[in-house]
Amino acid sequence: MSTVLDENDTTAATTVTAPPQAAGLRDGAFGNARALACRECGHEVGLGPSYACPECFGPLEVAYDYPAVTREEIAAGPRNIWRYKALLPVPTDIEQSPNTEPGFTRLLDARNLARELGLEKLWVKDDSTNPTNSFKDRVVACALSAARELDAKVFACPSTGNLANAVAAAGARAGIPTVVFIPSNLEQPKQVNSAVFTERLVAVDGNYDDVNKLASEIAGEEEGWAFVNVNVRPFYAEGSKTLGYEIAEQLGWRLPDQIVIPVASGSQLTKVDKAFQELIRLGLVEDKPYRVFGAQATGCSPVSVAYKAETDAIRPVKPDTIAKSLAIGNPADGIYVLDICRRTGGAVEDISDDEVREAIVLLARTEGIFTETAGGTTVGVLKKLVETGQLDTSLETVVINTGHGLKTLDAVSDRVAPFATIAPSYDAFVAADVL
Amino acid sequence: MSTVLDENDTTAATTVTAPPQAAGLRDGAFGNARALACRECGHEVGLGPSYACPECFGPLEVAYDYPAVTREEIAAGPRNIWRYKALLPVPTDIEQSPNTEPGFTRLLDARNLARELGLEKLWVKDDSTNPTNSFKDRVVACALSAARELDAKVFACPSTGNLANAVAAAGARAGIPTVVFIPSNLEQPKQVNSAVFTERLVAVDGNYDDVNKLASEIAGEEEGWAFVNVNVRPFYAEGSKTLGYEIAEQLGWRLPDQIVIPVASGSQLTKVDKAFQELIRLGLVEDKPYRVFGAQATGCSPVSVAYKAETDAIRPVKPDTIAKSLAIGNPADGIYVLDICRRTGGAVEDISDDEVREAIVLLARTEGIFTETAGGTTVGVLKKLVETGQLDTSLETVVINTGHGLKTLDAVSDRVAPFATIAPSYDAFVAADVL
Repeated sequence: MSTVLDENDTTAATTVTAPPQAAGLRDGAFGNARALACRECGHEVGLGPSYACPECFGPLEVAYDYPAVTREEIAAGPRNIWRYKALLPVPTDIEQSPNTEPGFTRLLDARNLARELGLEKLWVKDDSTNPTNSFKDRVVACALSAARELDAKVFACPSTGNLANAVAAAGARAGIPTVVFIPSNLEQPKQVNSAVFTERLVAVDGNYDDVNKLASEIAGEEEGWAFVNVNVRPFYAEGSKTLGYEIAEQLGWRLPDQIVIPVASGSQLTKVDKAFQELIRLGLVEDKPYRVFGAQATGCSPVSVAYKAETDAIRPVKPDTIAKSLAIGNPADGIYVLDICRRTGGAVEDISDDEVREAIVLLARTEGIFTETAGGTTVGVLKKLVETGQLDTSLETVVINTGHGLKTLDAVSDRVAPFATIAPSYDAFVAADVL
Repeated sequence: MSTVLDENDTTAATTVTAPPQAAGLRDGAFGNARALACRECGHEVGLGPSYACPECFGPLEVAYDYPAVTREEIAAGPRNIWRYKALLPVPTDIEQSPNTEPGFTRLLDARNLARELGLEKLWVKDDSTNPTNSFKDRVVACALSAARELDAKVFACPSTGNLANAVAAAGARAGIPTVVFIPSNLEQPKQVNSAVFTERLVAVDGNYDDVNKLASEIAGEEEGWAFVNVNVRPFYAEGSKTLGYEIAEQLGWRLPDQIVIPVASGSQLTKVDKAFQELIRLGLVEDKPYRVFGAQATGCSPVSVAYKAETDAIRPVKPDTIAKSLAIGNPADGIYVLDICRRTGGAVEDISDDEVREAIVLLARTEGIFTETAGGTTVGVLKKLVETGQLDTSLETVVINTGHGLKTLDAVSDRVAPFATIAPSYDAFVAADVL
């Protein structure tokens, strides 16, 4: 059974026949997905390893014949992202294929942080407890499924951090040859965190842009390579929707009033909004207004700058911030972030690296969550939104933590230190006056 | 309703009246717990901040008036350790008190590792995805509840690693003043991972034994300090039972045939066995034989040495191993580990530091899990148990991963490295012959 949704939504099901999917695919390879639809012109192409519209070069996004799905069916599913498989481009037997089983991470009632910021109700969605400690495990799991269904012989990505970890781990568990490309000057601890999973870590003498360009070249030249963030990107990106589904389910099938989301390419924010829209349209949550806020670090804030200038023209920047996992100077989905934040009455805001560091410590000291610089950016922007009156403190708010502080220790290592160093005696302890 | 269990089990409910609990406690402060019972002589004392038997100085353990509890009641509970609250020394409203909400971590069907080792069926219970990335979040959550019910004014521990992280994070979230004592020569990254959560990290000029001794002294001198692993240890230790409950529930309410567990103090192994026994006696799983295996690193293997010498006399050692989180030279529960492994037909085995390092990479490359040295020890011992024929490869086996490799990066940093370093060109990529 399919549901016909809003005509203006190019990702929604329509009544026209779906274009033929790539040759050799099994039935149901992509679940209820029906086509790849261009976000710009609506043109549809068959399900396969495509990512740009052949008509207008706009980005392709997965469109569905939405099924009837109930809260009970979802609740009866596995305790990971596959409970939402009916709304993802994956086969119905997805949980049988070895994968890292990400998702269904904690949604914490953040009473201390709420009190500190003056908010009535605040939740932290904590993706630092995913298998490789970032939200990337969600998107990579969906990309892995696509790679498998497309019979890819190699699973790959260019990355400097979280994505490399997630791809290397997922590839190992799936038993598919996995190649991860990194800049050769990447710090050794970060290399170890990927090299431990794959013997095919390739260091490239160049910066991240060079690595990225090489990956696109390989994706174009070689047969059978699935680059998660290049030629299977439409499938990959859908994984971020599960953040939105989980938040709604964990709130008791309810949308929050306000949500603050980090913006790198902008994909995560647009997918959380897509998830909320899907839930409303499928009747899984009540339709209600919600405001979406985007968070950037000032050193890489092209979307925030455009938002404040009230323009749609996003000017690419050369990133200069400690929030490396958000440092995308030319964000592919930036324009959609602007659309969503404006449409919902939200905003895009940015903060300095010092404020990022401060927010990391604030979140740790109030809620016992050690976030990386991206999460510091998001929590710090939440603070700034409250201070500048852009966020309504009486409304229920969710903030997303996308990664783990153990990966960016340097960001706070000069800010936190022992309170005192004492001799190993009770007298020395008393003299230190710890409390 | 209470169930009368095996008379030989001093932790079981009996028909005698429970001793009075500490003054000032609210009703149900410790749930269905009835007393603290000595593991050696069976003497019972009231529930309170006690840890040694006043009669014989044996260790005290929580005893219960076991309730009738059904699989359905458990399944309807929260997706964390509190789903088992009826079997823990915590109040029935425990999930309302801010805590890190640990547990219900992944149980992964480890097909690749099973194939590699020649096992028919193997599962990895992965506690590296707990809130602070180790199983310690489980025990600390139970200790925190006890501290709260005992109206402690300070939450504290001596530790060099995982325990410090877990205590500092849980204390922050609970909003209770938290003091963590560490040796002053601890590596800075490890200091950061606790200092980020608490401003009361105290460095002590001395080794871990000095820090530990100081903690015991403070626990004795000061009023209202709850040292998780000293004066509230009986409550703390019960948290490890949840590993056993979860494994059984995640297997579909079934016990595994064999389980391999790391041994530091030995507490975790004894508590997993206690959990299995409880589940059998409460009718939640079918009674069946299971074998428990203990894993140590050769550089700190007093229990393994005693096991192999077929003696009960565990001779303390001075630890010398990279598996720091297992480096307890005089394990308090070592004797009980011997009892359990012998009773169930298991064994205790140990491996070299080189084998630990090898096993970390093996687990990462086969299952996409990056474990710390303790997990490397456990997986490496599993491998050795298979190779030496001590483990039956036809039986269903579970291995526990207790912590995260990001905390012990040095262990493998000289073992894993990029496959190649290339120029940023397609030709260079082709020449590197990656596949």
